Amino acid sequence: MVIGHESAGVVEEVGSQVRHLAPGDRVALEPGVPCWKCSFCREGLYNLCPDMAFFATPPVHGSLADQVVHPAELCYKLPDGVSLEEGAMCEPLSVGVHACRRAQVSPETRVLIIGGGAIGLVTMLVARAFGSPRIIVADTHSERLTSAKEMGADETVLVSRNPEEMEKEIEEIRKKMGGPIDVSCDCVGSTKSLTTCLEITRSAGRVCVVGMRETDMTLPIITAISREVDILGVFRYRNTYPLCLDLIGSGRVDVKPLITHRYKFSEQDIKDAFEMSANGGNAIKVMFNL
Amino acid sequence: MVIGHESAGVVEEVGSQVRHLAPGDRVALEPGVPCWKCSFCREGLYNLCPDMAFFATPPVHGSLADQVVHPAELCYKLPDGVSLEEGAMCEPLSVGVHACRRAQVSPETRVLIIGGGAIGLVTMLVARAFGSPRIIVADTHSERLTSAKEMGADETVLVSRNPEEMEKEIEEIRKKMGGPIDVSCDCVGSTKSLTTCLEITRSAGRVCVVGMRETDMTLPIITAISREVDILGVFRYRNTYPLCLDLIGSGRVDVKPLITHRYKFSEQDIKDAFEMSANGGNAIKVMFNL
Amino acid sequence: MVIGHESAGVVEEVGSQVRHLAPGDRVALEPGVPCWKCSFCREGLYNLCPDMAFFATPPVHGSLADQVVHPAELCYKLPDGVSLEEGAMCEPLSVGVHACRRAQVSPETRVLIIGGGAIGLVTMLVARAFGSPRIIVADTHSERLTSAKEMGADETVLVSRNPEEMEKEIEEIRKKMGGPIDVSCDCVGSTKSLTTCLEITRSAGRVCVVGMRETDMTLPIITAISREVDILGVFRYRNTYPLCLDLIGSGRVDVKPLITHRYKFSEQDIKDAFEMSANGGNAIKVMFNL
Amino acid sequence: MVIGHESAGVVEEVGSQVRHLAPGDRVALEPGVPCWKCSFCREGLYNLCPDMAFFATPPVHGSLADQVVHPAELCYKLPDGVSLEEGAMCEPLSVGVHACRRAQVSPETRVLIIGGGAIGLVTMLVARAFGSPRIIVADTHSERLTSAKEMGADETVLVSRNPEEMEKEIEEIRKKMGGPIDVSCDCVGSTKSLTTCLEITRSAGRVCVVGMRETDMTLPIITAISREVDILGVFRYRNTYPLCLDLIGSGRVDVKPLITHRYKFSEQDIKDAFEMSANGGNAIKVMFNL
Repeated sequence: MVIGHESAGVVEEVGSQVRHLAPGDRVALEPGVPCWKCSFCREGLYNLCPDMAFFATPPVHGSLADQVVHPAELCYKLPDGVSLEEGAMCEPLSVGVHACRRAQVSPETRVLIIGGGAIGLVTMLVARAFGSPRIIVADTHSERLTSAKEMGADETVLVSRNPEEMEKEIEEIRKKMGGPIDVSCDCVGSTKSLTTCLEITRSAGRVCVVGMRETDMTLPIITAISREVDILGVFRYRNTYPLCLDLIGSGRVDVKPLITHRYKFSEQDIKDAFEMSANGGNAIKVMFNL
Repeated sequence: MVIGHESAGVVEEVGSQVRHLAPGDRVALEPGVPCWKCSFCREGLYNLCPDMAFFATPPVHGSLADQVVHPAELCYKLPDGVSLEEGAMCEPLSVGVHACRRAQVSPETRVLIIGGGAIGLVTMLVARAFGSPRIIVADTHSERLTSAKEMGADETVLVSRNPEEMEKEIEEIRKKMGGPIDVSCDCVGSTKSLTTCLEITRSAGRVCVVGMRETDMTLPIITAISREVDILGVFRYRNTYPLCLDLIGSGRVDVKPLITHRYKFSEQDIKDAFEMSANGGNAIKVMFNL
Repeated sequence: MVIGHESAGVVEEVGSQVRHLAPGDRVALEPGVPCWKCSFCREGLYNLCPDMAFFATPPVHGSLADQVVHPAELCYKLPDGVSLEEGAMCEPLSVGVHACRRAQVSPETRVLIIGGGAIGLVTMLVARAFGSPRIIVADTHSERLTSAKEMGADETVLVSRNPEEMEKEIEEIRKKMGGPIDVSCDCVGSTKSLTTCLEITRSAGRVCVVGMRETDMTLPIITAISREVDILGVFRYRNTYPLCLDLIGSGRVDVKPLITHRYKFSEQDIKDAFEMSANGGNAIKVMFNL
Repeated sequence: MVIGHESAGVVEEVGSQVRHLAPGDRVALEPGVPCWKCSFCREGLYNLCPDMAFFATPPVHGSLADQVVHPAELCYKLPDGVSLEEGAMCEPLSVGVHACRRAQVSPETRVLIIGGGAIGLVTMLVARAFGSPRIIVADTHSERLTSAKEMGADETVLVSRNPEEMEKEIEEIRKKMGGPIDVSCDCVGSTKSLTTCLEITRSAGRVCVVGMRETDMTLPIITAISREVDILGVFRYRNTYPLCLDLIGSGRVDVKPLITHRYKFSEQDIKDAFEMSANGGNAIKVMFNL
């Protein structure tokens, strides 16, 4: 099966009824095709459409290809000055947008982000664009924290995988935040990361689960529940591409530092790229260019 | 320490600035006294006030007494036709109101309630008053289900404490609901009850945790999170008493069937009441009358 | 041009991909066909779709015909026990549903409805189903008030078209409401009716404009604005049919009293019906049956 | 009667129970003292408290004085680096915060602001801080537009008082916006300004009435209502001071350019200041310093 779901390209051909696109247009591709007509789609929750066909989600092939056929309404014309690579970055950025919308990030929201990988970083970038006055990123890798700091985190905290360190780490995060933590985004999805979020978020705040790794977790859920901390999930995204293109096009979000590696779209290069990535190449995002 | 936090009584005396009450008025007592001025209070979330003084929450004495001093603004005059006993029932009913508000129960919301004790029953009564078209109550005791049915549940399901039965029980609940379960209220707070809620609630629905028993629970939280089922807690209630009195006074909610036992407020009777209750007397609510 | 947009019928034929309907099924027809793909549709606001094709809105023909072709996803199967006439009534009922949703009618909402015609009555029926504890209907025709009372209004107030009477009428409405008016629904759309709503609604309440008759109106808009009374419009409806069928099918709403006249679907009968209606026949809804 | 309600100062003395302030602290004064206990206060809507005592709102004296007594909970300690003048500016800035909150301004909201006076400018500053990607300010005075541009407006439009020019001006605003106008803030409150907002705002957008000048206005209200444009009022503000101080303290909002004139707090200077202001001195904000 073909993999890949973060992509942009140039229009080759359009259907007879398509008016907003023409051959030669550069477009970002939203990878999920919903039915548009079920009760979820009609209420604007199309990311939850049970008939969604999503690139690289079996049995649907992905977009790591030199040509794809895709519905015109899910192809978004890139503004001048937005590159194809930035267009492809709308996909991960969309996850950050959806997370910040669900968590109601605003200029009044101090945000903790656990996990400084690609998803943590896009969530951070969007939280900043949504006006968050203070963002702390925590991760177990110091080089990720360096990236986070360079890309805009106010503070970072190096944490361990050891649950016994949690109490001390929470104290450090609290101290560096200098005020209540209104929203915690778990971009890792482990027992320890989610437990930290449940413990640290202020009463009436939100825990937003963006990354999901472990399935069954033993959690002190009562500590959040009994303080009316809402626990909210994020499944992909909806209605995010126009905003992403506007954020990138206006310079309010810079996704370029997330692109750490570039390869040609050739058999050998693709092999190299996956090997590099598997062997701890510290990649954030790897681009294949035709 | 004096216990008790569900109470109503007759006004003996009022402060010089109190205008809405006079001696002789019958009132329901909202048991928590917030500071009214912290950031939570100012935003209308006074149930989360960190300086809350709540009847019978140490070091504050409770209201199981023949006299209490209480702020006038937390004493609500009973409408004609609402008894003192019904006034005292505003307290548990408030939990149901707060749960249904948080879970956004409306005429479009099918509700599963796990737990047919007092909290489950008030949640059921309020869900009905909020227009829910279909309510199922599940419990491990068949006599509780009988009460639930008599008090308005559309269907009931007898469940066990055995986790291995869960899958089968979920199937039965689904079948009896005859449509997606929009909201699940966990009025038990055990690993099994909360797991059931997380599994059974439809995508984009709400799980409302009303009862809390176990602290650390091993949960398949991803099953809810990845379908954007929000997990919402309930801590006491806020701004509920006027609505409760209106619901009771207008007959839209009947709390009388919840009062299963009555005692005099004498030393011996109190002893008897607690013994009865401790020895499995199948009490829902026990009233002490002066 | 063919008129008509409130209709139900029996399925003759279905497209090859239609799974939820079969010939012989009785269905209600939602009259507006949106594009499903524009930004309004994607956000769940499909009633505002700029490409909407709506029965009897030029150049689209209406449904006063013995056969229509209609998209399957806008044909809703009637539950057993719901008649074709009741199916057709989903259309006006939808307006009431949309109004009550926008105005956030709940068990905590006292509602004033100005206008006791068809739209006022459906709004009243839905406000009741949404749990409103107290509903007052005002109209200039006493026979309409009689209908409103029979169909569930708690109180009615006879008003005049004379603006000078307004102050006195407001006083009467307030007195009969016996508490703050949380929501006012203007189902008339005149300067006087809207002025009454703006004046009478409590601070932080909602004025919902359901009927629209006059275009330019001289209004004391500041009286509402300066008390943070939101002024909300209603344009048709969205996502209402399943709820309407559930409300009718379960008996929570009874639309039958709204059907005051019935005619055969023949040339002569149609002529008669329109004449009766034009000549003050006091019709609420007139049905044509094949 | 003493006037004035925008003020900051130094604490002279505190009550025995005050813990968050001490003599010598510099504080901003929120000018309205609500009862904290009525139903509006309890729901977080304390700006609508019917028992509000507000500086300079009869019979309450204002704060244009060298000493005032004020409740400690309405005195907000200034962060280091925030001057007394900036502290006083929290008052007008609060109006902008409340307007942007009510209108739901976010990174997805294009904003038109009609009126480039003090209120229009603070609304503009806050809209920017809330992430608005594009803000246009319209006014009848070109020098105000120059200020607006210098303080951050993306574009400005010079408009007239002549209603016949409106159509042409709307076209110019639309063109300069380059996309749908999601929110219009009327910071003038005239028939023409509000009419412009009602006409120009996109379907499902919001018109926020921030300034109020004329009482009865003849408005094409249907043009907004029939497209579900919500009309929302702003009455003062609530829960804004901590955010204002954070916005100012962090440099995200710069209120200093709004302060165009400074006077000593002496009899002669005060006279001079009011004369200057009355005689068209083009003042935005005038500060009196002890």
